[in-house]
Amino acid sequence: MRWQPLYFGSLWANQYSDVMKRQHLPDARGVLQAPPEVGGEYEIPPDFELEVRLERTAMNLLESACNALEQVRLNRPLVHNITNYVVMNFTANALLAVGASPVMAHAREEVEDMVRLAGALIINIGTLSTPWIESMFKAGRAAAASSVPIVLDPVGSGATRFRTETARRMLEELPVSVVRGNASEIISLGGAAGGARGVDSIHSADDARAAAEHLARSSSVVVAVTGVEDLVTDGVRTVRIGNGHALMGRVTGTGCAASALCAAFCAVERDPFTAVTGALLTFGIAGELAAAPGPRPGTFQVLLLDALDEIDRALLTRHARIGV
Amino acid sequence: MRWQPLYFGSLWANQYSDVMKRQHLPDARGVLQAPPEVGGEYEIPPDFELEVRLERTAMNLLESACNALEQVRLNRPLVHNITNYVVMNFTANALLAVGASPVMAHAREEVEDMVRLAGALIINIGTLSTPWIESMFKAGRAAAASSVPIVLDPVGSGATRFRTETARRMLEELPVSVVRGNASEIISLGGAAGGARGVDSIHSADDARAAAEHLARSSSVVVAVTGVEDLVTDGVRTVRIGNGHALMGRVTGTGCAASALCAAFCAVERDPFTAVTGALLTFGIAGELAAAPGPRPGTFQVLLLDALDEIDRALLTRHARIGV
Amino acid sequence: MRWQPLYFGSLWANQYSDVMKRQHLPDARGVLQAPPEVGGEYEIPPDFELEVRLERTAMNLLESACNALEQVRLNRPLVHNITNYVVMNFTANALLAVGASPVMAHAREEVEDMVRLAGALIINIGTLSTPWIESMFKAGRAAAASSVPIVLDPVGSGATRFRTETARRMLEELPVSVVRGNASEIISLGGAAGGARGVDSIHSADDARAAAEHLARSSSVVVAVTGVEDLVTDGVRTVRIGNGHALMGRVTGTGCAASALCAAFCAVERDPFTAVTGALLTFGIAGELAAAPGPRPGTFQVLLLDALDEIDRALLTRHARIGV
Repeated sequence: MRWQPLYFGSLWANQYSDVMKRQHLPDARGVLQAPPEVGGEYEIPPDFELEVRLERTAMNLLESACNALEQVRLNRPLVHNITNYVVMNFTANALLAVGASPVMAHAREEVEDMVRLAGALIINIGTLSTPWIESMFKAGRAAAASSVPIVLDPVGSGATRFRTETARRMLEELPVSVVRGNASEIISLGGAAGGARGVDSIHSADDARAAAEHLARSSSVVVAVTGVEDLVTDGVRTVRIGNGHALMGRVTGTGCAASALCAAFCAVERDPFTAVTGALLTFGIAGELAAAPGPRPGTFQVLLLDALDEIDRALLTRHARIGV
Repeated sequence: MRWQPLYFGSLWANQYSDVMKRQHLPDARGVLQAPPEVGGEYEIPPDFELEVRLERTAMNLLESACNALEQVRLNRPLVHNITNYVVMNFTANALLAVGASPVMAHAREEVEDMVRLAGALIINIGTLSTPWIESMFKAGRAAAASSVPIVLDPVGSGATRFRTETARRMLEELPVSVVRGNASEIISLGGAAGGARGVDSIHSADDARAAAEHLARSSSVVVAVTGVEDLVTDGVRTVRIGNGHALMGRVTGTGCAASALCAAFCAVERDPFTAVTGALLTFGIAGELAAAPGPRPGTFQVLLLDALDEIDRALLTRHARIGV
Repeated sequence: MRWQPLYFGSLWANQYSDVMKRQHLPDARGVLQAPPEVGGEYEIPPDFELEVRLERTAMNLLESACNALEQVRLNRPLVHNITNYVVMNFTANALLAVGASPVMAHAREEVEDMVRLAGALIINIGTLSTPWIESMFKAGRAAAASSVPIVLDPVGSGATRFRTETARRMLEELPVSVVRGNASEIISLGGAAGGARGVDSIHSADDARAAAEHLARSSSVVVAVTGVEDLVTDGVRTVRIGNGHALMGRVTGTGCAASALCAAFCAVERDPFTAVTGALLTFGIAGELAAAPGPRPGTFQVLLLDALDEIDRALLTRHARIGV
């Protein structure tokens, strides 16, 4: 599968094509040298018409991502989290840093009341247990009744049958809008017999593309696979996001925080595909900003929260890397 | 309601009045310009006698706050926390940083044993569930039997009936010494039909003053309302604390940490009104110290713990802002 | 009990003896002055033969510790944590920082599946409750069946009967490889009637030596007592580790993280005595590295994770302090 970049920070994809076509010739290996302000090298687009259409998609997505981020800041959507014990603090702080308002509540006595106040519900199965499953379904049904979008983070799906089956049942019984997982988790839900190793992925996002597109179509959800590159698909449209940093895999809860951001963006942007793309661009670029000083993992975790506070339209536009 | 400052860091309120009366005249709008080392402008005290009495109160409170902080450092009181999952780590670290010794235990099999070892009990309903409620009441009754002071943090009271009713029942059935909440939470307990939005307040401390004073009298508790300004009342005495920083609202668990500090101070200072004033002065000034380098929220959370370790009599005295 | 140093960072113990014997004479008090690159002063070894044997032990242990650390980095062992709510995030990040792969799962429906995927199981009773105890035993029995080593952290044993009895029952019914606790916790399990105050120790590691050795022999486990100095014993061999820093007692969860590191090292090193010594050397030296800039507790917690990422063979060899 070819990674076709459509947008590289601060230079629009269509300008970029123009610039490249004007200034650069294919080299001996048949690839275009990117201009110095972009870096790297890329194949010549085989289909100019398609290229232009996709460039427009990338431009629109980025513009919508910027708008959604600004709406989060403006509206401070309440995000109801039913999530795992490990990441609760970091998730709440990530949501606060980006501008949303987190609440955590899991008692069956109150989840319905709480979710009705919320702009989105995130269900994360990272430290699952039977009483919590009951509450997750209760909250999910109440969310559905109130048209509150639901994001599912199937942490560790594929690692144990308990998690895989619970995640599958949620996809069947609840009108989930978005599923965000790593490659192993998505393969366990949408692919052939997969496999996982604890909660960390043993697959790349590319491995998961077919599974993600299948899952998106069969369950009518937007699927996001995060990893070295992220992939977002609704089964028809698929985009890739080239932002992020390896240090994000060295801090617990970055995937869970990405899911929580998806929920915050879904609370302010009706199209989940657009919302998720915006959330993952925001999170990936925040990761790059946090990694810029070359920190080790402890410091990186702190700087990641700072970057979620700092990020804005200008930083999104300068650093976004969207492709197909 | 008028914010009447009584003490501005390092300048005693009565000296301040003298300084102002000597050096400043009311301006065209009928207000006094504060001397440059204080800043701001204030109305002329309408009642000099009352003023002097209140100044003495402020001086006494600050002196007692300093003493209580030093007692916490000296005695390392064990604070038994039954609190919410989101903030457990940060609360424990805040208590350790200020000099106390935290313990978290919630099993009905052991809460009674644990609370008997403790200097204070903090009950926080942030991620409430039925089994935990049973343990909270068990711990509360054992605390009462052993004269261990109880601090209640009614997180999210007003947002769901489950939380509001649980908090009310605790106030009825347990000899709670202190309730610390944001304005919405306090209004839900002591006021007319209030309202909340998740766990973040939609009211100011001023809105909550009547509710707080009513709650204090009807439940015989000291009530603390924290926000841009903090308010502490026992129903007869009411003081305001002007310390703190907006970044405290951008980090999860700062309110919960403030409640935990109230418990630590109650463990070493018999008068809960004095203890709470001391705890909130300490926490608010720590927030200001942490915010001084202009950090973003991730870094601020770290520096807040550092500041709780650093704060001492001199810093309290220099920065305290007490008023009525 | 004499603290007989065998190895002082970057200078082998036997070289050190040579250096001392060549260059230094006992002073008036009958002690040897250490050479300047070592510092301090030490008694003349009373038994040269024993000394040489012990030096070899220290050298072997350090070499094995370095190898184990490198194996953790290379193999990224999956560590299954059933631990307390307070420290889950910090423990997961400590394991990630040192190079291992953490997973947290506690549901009785899945603990057996999860532990079979793991290289080691850590059971930590810090926020114990009845349903979790059931899962801990289930996971422990499945670990035993799959020869997955079990590390027990008896947090707060001695403080309440519930904790003491649960920890004792685990030692009786599960083939635990390692117990890591503070002095009070170990005394409560292996000694005469002890006592604790919450979850913080009121005893020194020296007080706990007899209890630790007795516990190691009676339960066939390796016992680690951490404190100002750490002690590791299998009932026959006992070593002390002189690394660490006082700030580690000012951050919650450092003991729990040390236990989790013991589990990670047990996953790659078959001899638990060697694994635990390696883990505690690594953790203690990481603490020293983190404390070097003179941070306060909030910053220290962040730097401790950074140091766990940074530490390697060279740093271990330079800073290790092993003695008997």
